[in-house]
Amino acid sequence: MSLIYTNLTAVAKTLGNIDKWLDKAEAHAKAKPFDVAVLLGARLSPDQFPLLKQIQIASDWVKNGHARLADKPAPSHPDTEQTLAEIRARIETCLAYVSTFKSEDFAGAEKRLITSTRNPGKATLGSDFLAETVLPNFYFHAATSYAILRHNGVALGKSDYIGKVTQQDL
Amino acid sequence: MSLIYTNLTAVAKTLGNIDKWLDKAEAHAKAKPFDVAVLLGARLSPDQFPLLKQIQIASDWVKNGHARLADKPAPSHPDTEQTLAEIRARIETCLAYVSTFKSEDFAGAEKRLITSTRNPGKATLGSDFLAETVLPNFYFHAATSYAILRHNGVALGKSDYIGKVTQQDL
Repeated sequence: MSLIYTNLTAVAKTLGNIDKWLDKAEAHAKAKPFDVAVLLGARLSPDQFPLLKQIQIASDWVKNGHARLADKPAPSHPDTEQTLAEIRARIETCLAYVSTFKSEDFAGAEKRLITSTRNPGKATLGSDFLAETVLPNFYFHAATSYAILRHNGVALGKSDYIGKVTQQDL
Repeated sequence: MSLIYTNLTAVAKTLGNIDKWLDKAEAHAKAKPFDVAVLLGARLSPDQFPLLKQIQIASDWVKNGHARLADKPAPSHPDTEQTLAEIRARIETCLAYVSTFKSEDFAGAEKRLITSTRNPGKATLGSDFLAETVLPNFYFHAATSYAILRHNGVALGKSDYIGKVTQQDL
């Protein structure tokens, strides 16, 4: 099993966890009650992206992490979402896309040079791209989404963030 | 180069970035002015750990991620810090410890079974332990530390979080 695939699978699982946090967010908004759209627009600092945008970016790191490391063209997922239902559909679309990848798609990915139009003349080794760009960025936007919800009273705990961990019997 | 080592090196780099955020936190507290200890005790929700504890946990994931995956006994870094100088010394101690590791220390680590006294009779494959436990937990506490500082007005940006990315010339 490719370790890149194992890491990307964990990232996709966490995006799926975010979808479950949105269940709790919706229930919290109903119970108070307030419009759940308030949470989608919530941010921790005036010059920080709100929850909706944090989830869009997290979703894009999942999509682009898979596509770039497997050297496939990524589909466009435009940032048109405005409602809870729409951002959940975006997560679902992203997870359906990345579920098509297999471990073999990442053969040689560690040593592939990844280029970006933002940095002409430069390239990043696949292993560095995963470790220094995809993972820290994805988990940043996932944890920030979690922090925004926690700050606004949604009853999330660490196990909602981590989700189910793969284990085996000894 | 072991991909586990590459990932752990990125994690250690991010812990070093947190130390630089504390420079900005100190400067912010001096400029306002207020006691920087207020930031160390700040949290985003009453039932969430404050900044000081977030950094202690982030530091422990760096230390234990290296030790567990290299199958070495981890030194104890007791949670005795109370001041900015002390938590910065904790980061320094952790980074000095993990700087002793080399890529070769993680040979075979992907397939090693990692056990925990918390889950008797169960084990986690090293690759799963890295991808589902060490990385999401470390980046969670790093991003939460960042979020606490941002929420309290410290002028951090995404490049402070990511730091320098390894690139090569084409």
